Amino acid sequence: MAALARSVLVTGSNRGIGLELVRQLAASPRPPQHIFATCRDPESPRGKALQELAAQHPSIKLVQLVNLPSIRGAVRAVGSHLKDWGLNLLINNAGVSSHATLRSLDSREMLSAFATNVVGALVSLRQEFLPLLEKAAKGAGKEGLSCSRAAVINISTKLGSIGLCLGVPEAPMYPYRASKAAQNMVTRCMAAELQDKGILCVAIHPGWVKTDMGTEKVLGCAPLTVEHSVQGILTVLASLSQDTSGAFLDWEGNTLPW
Amino acid sequence: MAALARSVLVTGSNRGIGLELVRQLAASPRPPQHIFATCRDPESPRGKALQELAAQHPSIKLVQLVNLPSIRGAVRAVGSHLKDWGLNLLINNAGVSSHATLRSLDSREMLSAFATNVVGALVSLRQEFLPLLEKAAKGAGKEGLSCSRAAVINISTKLGSIGLCLGVPEAPMYPYRASKAAQNMVTRCMAAELQDKGILCVAIHPGWVKTDMGTEKVLGCAPLTVEHSVQGILTVLASLSQDTSGAFLDWEGNTLPW
Repeated sequence: MAALARSVLVTGSNRGIGLELVRQLAASPRPPQHIFATCRDPESPRGKALQELAAQHPSIKLVQLVNLPSIRGAVRAVGSHLKDWGLNLLINNAGVSSHATLRSLDSREMLSAFATNVVGALVSLRQEFLPLLEKAAKGAGKEGLSCSRAAVINISTKLGSIGLCLGVPEAPMYPYRASKAAQNMVTRCMAAELQDKGILCVAIHPGWVKTDMGTEKVLGCAPLTVEHSVQGILTVLASLSQDTSGAFLDWEGNTLPW
Repeated sequence: MAALARSVLVTGSNRGIGLELVRQLAASPRPPQHIFATCRDPESPRGKALQELAAQHPSIKLVQLVNLPSIRGAVRAVGSHLKDWGLNLLINNAGVSSHATLRSLDSREMLSAFATNVVGALVSLRQEFLPLLEKAAKGAGKEGLSCSRAAVINISTKLGSIGLCLGVPEAPMYPYRASKAAQNMVTRCMAAELQDKGILCVAIHPGWVKTDMGTEKVLGCAPLTVEHSVQGILTVLASLSQDTSGAFLDWEGNTLPW
């Protein structure tokens, strides 16, 4: 089996799904040559599991990513490793949840969810990562769209499905849901705009994994382990093509309604 | 034909669709008893058309609505007119557009679109207007959901449909599209949460009216007049029931994909 991609960058990789993505990518039979694992403070105790993982796998590079100036530094660091190859696969996994209900929400909390889950990720992508992805798409010597050529994967959630509108009275979570619906719109717009540049864009619902908080009430089923979820996500990523760019898929590859 | 509602509040009513909604409501054979027409500065030259309309129709009350403190003043003013009846129909029409492309967008512009189109409207609704709507729903002496009992209508746009993802390369408008997808999520969540309180919530696409800017390229058809659009919207509003609460409809009553 070919490597999923020559180079991968995973945001929010110090815990949960992000950490497990880095772990499984590094441990795969044909691992990516470069795995950039970003988080707010990889050198702090909160980055301990990631540090241990990087110590075992030289393919993993820890990169601090907090705000736009730090992103510029991160991109310089990533670019110096990649040289002329560009970045093949960007997995936007960092994000914040918010349990605010219609009664409890305030402007600041809601704007903060939009700032982190939509605006920050999009602006850093456009200003900093897009040139690296375009370089990878051009240099890949491949036609069509795939994660091995150039792709942006946005980790989304079924709670961001407007059509399903799962269990609102049980889990209102207005800021989280609204920001994830907005993120889904951005995924779809980017897929439409970037396909001619050879860049694939997909939104993935990772399932209800044990790292999730506050979604128990809408589950109606036992939660997934994070290992199982990430195994599924990586299988789905390997299967993506121009036919699925712009899709909203779950960790088993099922299409979800917007 | 019965009045659409005893009391109606329309935001962003100094021009375009908001102004025409106020005009047609006031001129209808059985007009609402109270039409609250809000905008940022109803006394300025920008409110001139609204002032002239209010001079002809004593049912129209001009109300300034800028930020949360002004909303509290507005709600006190509205409440003093309504006494124990509550507010039947809130039409959230105020909003900002944004033409930013993936290349040109910046954080501030995108956050501003979310702040105005989603957060401001939702927080003011929850803190200030919801008690008036709940009062109307309780006091109506009616079962089921309708605009004549209690309803929130959010003026949305087909450009906010993730499923359609209309003409992105021609009209990228990332901040506008993303904020309208988020607003649609809020509409749907509110519909689910407020139905037991007797409050209906619907998102309406007014069509491509001549007041719209920058949507010409995705039209593929001649634009509507604002009169025609608003005639359609008011006909759709009169038809809404518990079966359509939580829907995304156009000015002709057609269901749009999320």
